[in-house]
Amino acid sequence: MTHPRYTKLLDSLPPTVPFVGPEVIERTTGQPFSARLGANENTFGPSPKALEAMRQADTEIWKYPDSASHDLKSEIAAQNDVGYDNIVIGEGVDGLLGYLARMMVEQGDAVVTSDGAYPTFNYHVAGFGGVLHKVPFKDDHEDLDALIARAAEVDAKLLYLSNPDNPMGSYIPGDTIAAALDRLPTGCLMILDEAYIELAPQDARTPIATEDPRVIRMRSMSKAYGLAGARVGYALGAAPLIKNFDKIRNHFGMNRSAQHAALAALQDTEWLAHIQTQVQQARDHLTRIANDNGLTALPSATNFVTIDCGKDGAYAKAVLDNLAAQGIFVRMPGPAPLNRCIRVSCAQTAALDLFAAALPAALKAAQ
Amino acid sequence: MTHPRYTKLLDSLPPTVPFVGPEVIERTTGQPFSARLGANENTFGPSPKALEAMRQADTEIWKYPDSASHDLKSEIAAQNDVGYDNIVIGEGVDGLLGYLARMMVEQGDAVVTSDGAYPTFNYHVAGFGGVLHKVPFKDDHEDLDALIARAAEVDAKLLYLSNPDNPMGSYIPGDTIAAALDRLPTGCLMILDEAYIELAPQDARTPIATEDPRVIRMRSMSKAYGLAGARVGYALGAAPLIKNFDKIRNHFGMNRSAQHAALAALQDTEWLAHIQTQVQQARDHLTRIANDNGLTALPSATNFVTIDCGKDGAYAKAVLDNLAAQGIFVRMPGPAPLNRCIRVSCAQTAALDLFAAALPAALKAAQ
Repeated sequence: MTHPRYTKLLDSLPPTVPFVGPEVIERTTGQPFSARLGANENTFGPSPKALEAMRQADTEIWKYPDSASHDLKSEIAAQNDVGYDNIVIGEGVDGLLGYLARMMVEQGDAVVTSDGAYPTFNYHVAGFGGVLHKVPFKDDHEDLDALIARAAEVDAKLLYLSNPDNPMGSYIPGDTIAAALDRLPTGCLMILDEAYIELAPQDARTPIATEDPRVIRMRSMSKAYGLAGARVGYALGAAPLIKNFDKIRNHFGMNRSAQHAALAALQDTEWLAHIQTQVQQARDHLTRIANDNGLTALPSATNFVTIDCGKDGAYAKAVLDNLAAQGIFVRMPGPAPLNRCIRVSCAQTAALDLFAAALPAALKAAQ
Repeated sequence: MTHPRYTKLLDSLPPTVPFVGPEVIERTTGQPFSARLGANENTFGPSPKALEAMRQADTEIWKYPDSASHDLKSEIAAQNDVGYDNIVIGEGVDGLLGYLARMMVEQGDAVVTSDGAYPTFNYHVAGFGGVLHKVPFKDDHEDLDALIARAAEVDAKLLYLSNPDNPMGSYIPGDTIAAALDRLPTGCLMILDEAYIELAPQDARTPIATEDPRVIRMRSMSKAYGLAGARVGYALGAAPLIKNFDKIRNHFGMNRSAQHAALAALQDTEWLAHIQTQVQQARDHLTRIANDNGLTALPSATNFVTIDCGKDGAYAKAVLDNLAAQGIFVRMPGPAPLNRCIRVSCAQTAALDLFAAALPAALKAAQ
């Protein structure tokens, strides 16, 4: 009998996974959640037109998907005033981040991100042997100047910035980011993760020239568009960079019905406006719940509200664990001092009422 | 302005793609195909129960998928008499082959496959810097003994074998493969691609002990189960090998509705029997069409029939091109002497009648 011979890199990787999903937690505890407020899903759901497009496409699910995602890319090009060749579609932003890491990161290459930012990006960088350099948040914002300074120090190939950011829900004005690009070190590509951009104030949008080779923007159909289960993300970037995804991506990796659903979702601007209103109301609701319990809700440019529990990470963890025991699924940031907070997704009033009902007991139990 | 710094490997890769999809061809020519017989899709479609499961799951498409694909894996475990930990689910077999190449292949590593076998596997191996060693088919079958001998010669880490095979549609008895495993060189993992296994005679199935570390089996939901657009594949292998996929895979990469559809499709054994009958009738129909035109249809253990056009590759290519001009999408094997053939997918009578009507003119035009 013979053991398969893995790469040295594979043998060196830990068996950890970036996220434990809510279904996995439910199976472990044997208790289903009554309120699913931890994954920043859009519980208001996608456009009815997207659902209808998906239903119609389902009848042709025996066909492989269009490997070029032509119709979807054409719509994205029109909406973002970029060329068809400036767009790549992937199996969620997660898939695209994995492809990009593969394209850029060799063993030992430096990558800069914020301490507490998206774990799945870190997972992909480590998975290709990259060395992560983490910059602390500053005043609950990603510290753009410090990120750029660190990128110069370590000669980073990639700099990850989410705007609006997860897990704190803050944002940096887009003009500030655009200006900062001029200070980005030569040879460093900025990944601007805009997964929540449709839910942010207008000034969060960063003006970027179509063929600017210094930055690639990531967009998600999982948040404002309510299609998390469909697994559709897209990236906008300079044509030569985008073209290189074709060298390595899973060309037939996209679900065919999801391609149709995403197209219809993008076209339904009325539903997007409806979602923006629902999310704003839910943010206000979550802020009131926090205040009613003597806690501070951080300003949110996303579909979640990060609530400062007012003490340390152990305390917030105890709050979170008690909420989970009561059937309320929320998450919390990893590193201090961000981990004084819990992160609660926007949702319908009924679900937020469940959270409101559970929170006082959770706070009491944590003390 | 700065150019992104790619890996040396990425810079060395060609801009080619493994397959040009039928939609891409249609857009290039400006002419839609009237018969889609080139991608070995299941035009009979999936189980109505799978469609219904998909429709029901669509209403919860705002949820991320279960990262563990728990319910789907449990069904596969039961059906294949293996453990839950012997299964990994991926974005089609294409996705799983990509993950496996990443796990095993370092720059310069040797990999053995058949000349004319699955191009997407070759694409992934090359994409990780592997060196492909191709063994010719023998009598229109993959040459198992020669593949093993070549693997020993070049110290291959991976040996790819499809059974039944694509593009010739032949198969090797499973007992022959099982016996050959004992001759596989130490340190070489066999990838046994069984994408068409449900459509093959019973003796094509290879008996493999659950924890045998020498082989990993790939299975597809795209062929017999008619879910090509859903993008679901699975692999069966020894638990330590399967566990290692978790170090690198896109944990939330599966479409949620597709997980539900695949589960329902696997459970509907009655529909599978129906498809097996339909495919057998279509094979017989395609064989008659070939004979009516003085051509030889190769025996098929798959949902396509490979038809020997009786001359060289240039002739078969001319036949294929003329069929395409008449709106009939088929494909053909790449290398000689396999490229004397065209490959036609099983389909409903109406589509096969279109092929039958177009073939005489195509043969005439090619002469």
